[in-house]
Amino acid sequence: MSVEPTSMAGHLRPFKDYKPKHFLWDVSEDGRVATLRLNRPERKNPLTFESYAEMRDLFRDLAYASDVRSVVLTGAGGNFSSGGDVFEIIEPLTHMAMPDLLAFTRMTGDLVKAMKKCPQPIVAAVDGICVGAGAILAMASDIRLATPEAKTAFLFTRVGLAGADMGACGILPRIIGQGRAAELLFTGRTMNAREGEAWGFFNTIHTAEVLEAEAKKLAHSLADGPWFAHTMTKTMLNQEWAMGIDEMIESEAQAQAICMATKDFRRAFEAFAEKRKPTFEGN
Amino acid sequence: MSVEPTSMAGHLRPFKDYKPKHFLWDVSEDGRVATLRLNRPERKNPLTFESYAEMRDLFRDLAYASDVRSVVLTGAGGNFSSGGDVFEIIEPLTHMAMPDLLAFTRMTGDLVKAMKKCPQPIVAAVDGICVGAGAILAMASDIRLATPEAKTAFLFTRVGLAGADMGACGILPRIIGQGRAAELLFTGRTMNAREGEAWGFFNTIHTAEVLEAEAKKLAHSLADGPWFAHTMTKTMLNQEWAMGIDEMIESEAQAQAICMATKDFRRAFEAFAEKRKPTFEGN
Amino acid sequence: MSVEPTSMAGHLRPFKDYKPKHFLWDVSEDGRVATLRLNRPERKNPLTFESYAEMRDLFRDLAYASDVRSVVLTGAGGNFSSGGDVFEIIEPLTHMAMPDLLAFTRMTGDLVKAMKKCPQPIVAAVDGICVGAGAILAMASDIRLATPEAKTAFLFTRVGLAGADMGACGILPRIIGQGRAAELLFTGRTMNAREGEAWGFFNTIHTAEVLEAEAKKLAHSLADGPWFAHTMTKTMLNQEWAMGIDEMIESEAQAQAICMATKDFRRAFEAFAEKRKPTFEGN
Repeated sequence: MSVEPTSMAGHLRPFKDYKPKHFLWDVSEDGRVATLRLNRPERKNPLTFESYAEMRDLFRDLAYASDVRSVVLTGAGGNFSSGGDVFEIIEPLTHMAMPDLLAFTRMTGDLVKAMKKCPQPIVAAVDGICVGAGAILAMASDIRLATPEAKTAFLFTRVGLAGADMGACGILPRIIGQGRAAELLFTGRTMNAREGEAWGFFNTIHTAEVLEAEAKKLAHSLADGPWFAHTMTKTMLNQEWAMGIDEMIESEAQAQAICMATKDFRRAFEAFAEKRKPTFEGN
Repeated sequence: MSVEPTSMAGHLRPFKDYKPKHFLWDVSEDGRVATLRLNRPERKNPLTFESYAEMRDLFRDLAYASDVRSVVLTGAGGNFSSGGDVFEIIEPLTHMAMPDLLAFTRMTGDLVKAMKKCPQPIVAAVDGICVGAGAILAMASDIRLATPEAKTAFLFTRVGLAGADMGACGILPRIIGQGRAAELLFTGRTMNAREGEAWGFFNTIHTAEVLEAEAKKLAHSLADGPWFAHTMTKTMLNQEWAMGIDEMIESEAQAQAICMATKDFRRAFEAFAEKRKPTFEGN
Repeated sequence: MSVEPTSMAGHLRPFKDYKPKHFLWDVSEDGRVATLRLNRPERKNPLTFESYAEMRDLFRDLAYASDVRSVVLTGAGGNFSSGGDVFEIIEPLTHMAMPDLLAFTRMTGDLVKAMKKCPQPIVAAVDGICVGAGAILAMASDIRLATPEAKTAFLFTRVGLAGADMGACGILPRIIGQGRAAELLFTGRTMNAREGEAWGFFNTIHTAEVLEAEAKKLAHSLADGPWFAHTMTKTMLNQEWAMGIDEMIESEAQAQAICMATKDFRRAFEAFAEKRKPTFEGN
């Protein structure tokens, strides 16, 4: 009796035809870049219990995507997201028992965990309102593009809550510094686009006309690059969050040795030696 | 035999009439905002063994304040603080045995721990000289306002000591970045106000005329806000310092669920629904 | 029978006459400041298996230097370093078995560990090309000076690898912020000198004419300062990387108490009291 070797690739499935109920999902012709669009523009694209859960499940499942290699996260109608809807989310929460409250905060936290753990780099394209849980979704993305009109606020304090929401007290300080994060989280004030860029929250600023095209261009360049190595970059950026220096370096020695064992590494060298552009295959 | 439920509130006491010996303490009419003023302007407000110890005890005790909800920390006479006095502190230290030296460095460190652990957000208002342990007090505050004349220096190196003082090698890099912190701590050079703002050490810059008023305005806005939730924001900003991402998110799920169980959360929602300003009660 | 006390100083040796094979090493007249120059200008000063290993050994051995108190790390011919040579390093790696790959990534990681652990502050002087492992060497230095022409890129992704190289996914975010680091590591794009300064990667910018003189001036000022205390500053900046706030503060209480027990501390006080410049002896 023999045991057949199985390929992990056999567990993968395409996400080109994934049909979400509570947001839009569009995959590029080549299958490589997905665009997740929060799409209730008349309400500035709020989140609901259902959209939280559906996004959490999607980002978890993307670990098994056979096609999608990077994700653009954006809004509609000139805004990114107004966060948890006041009447659809906050009102019900004010009546819940503690176990249900914790189940909710864990579900929203699970969305951030899923975004951090999905192998695809996530590029947020932020225009207009980007507040509450919307600001968290931008924060939890890997790279953030914005327009000059982007208005980002961690306004949990405005509804009587702590800035400690979905990881903000731990993640935001690592992006913009502990002092600036403290001010934003204590006061709930708006960070404008200029501040967001100067502080390192936004990577680049673009006009609204080209924002999404720029985000997709970046996402495609990542998807066309050594995307297996990119998944390792993403893993390690998160994995090393609380390691000491020695442990970081040993972890990266292992992670990079894995990448050096890929054919993509050899492909890149061969292309370099032949002065042509490499074609990566993710293996 | 029955056990009466006891309220933790019974352990609280007002700090309105607290009378320190080595600095000034002034509480606003409504009892919510305290101003701690280092007040030896002729010496640029140095710290002494006694003022270190008294501040340490005060910040520890503020966990039991029934009135004060935020603290403004400032100086007098156009300066914030010149730090540990050369003749009153440094000279005696040069003669001490190791156990006494360690007792001193632990006491000063305990002041920073107490500032980090007191539930009230601390707003530093920094004008002029802000050096040595004075710079540390600013660093250990939650939000920092300054004038264009603020001169901040971690000048321990100038007296033959390490930059490793009261947590500076760990905390300063998280505020301004590892490279800038290294330069300041190795060289002891002055960070001017413009650099301080550009690097995220200072949140905002104000003229000397309005600095204290702006700091108090901010402190009052925090005190009038959801101050129980603010205490949780402060706790988590410090608590998550060395956690991994998963642990941060689970910790915040618990912390925010606690805040969602407060009446302040419901008060905020009801006020929002009725288009009025909420009144928070910290429960 | 008595046991003679032994001095650790007996284990020290001078590095003035150290003769490396794969880079240049020059020690100032007073023996205090060493300049390590990557010197294959016709190839933009690439690294090789041999130069990695030799630098690793040198930085490890510097813990036992009796003379050198700070190190300037620089390049030649208008460039800092082009990193691991494509034909001398990358090509051989594409043929190696996993244990050899891991041995290589551990060796390069050991170089960063050795730079972090050597007691001397390292001042990088960066002109022109500073890419791949060259960018890592700059990142692993303590203070970074550059010219307006400095072009820094973590371009591992260009050869099909992860940004997780020699600690970059853990160390770079602490210098320039998590968002900017993610962009640089995912895309491999060049960070120009202006960005490098605005983001805190470079401490100061100088013309190419004076860059090296400025780096040496800084290195000399550190070497002439309380250099035992500087070694403690360096140790603690790295040691506290992943500690909680309480642990940081206790660690610094111990570290600073050690420095307060040095004669250099008393020398600094006495010089201050007598209004003269102190002379430090590192004990």
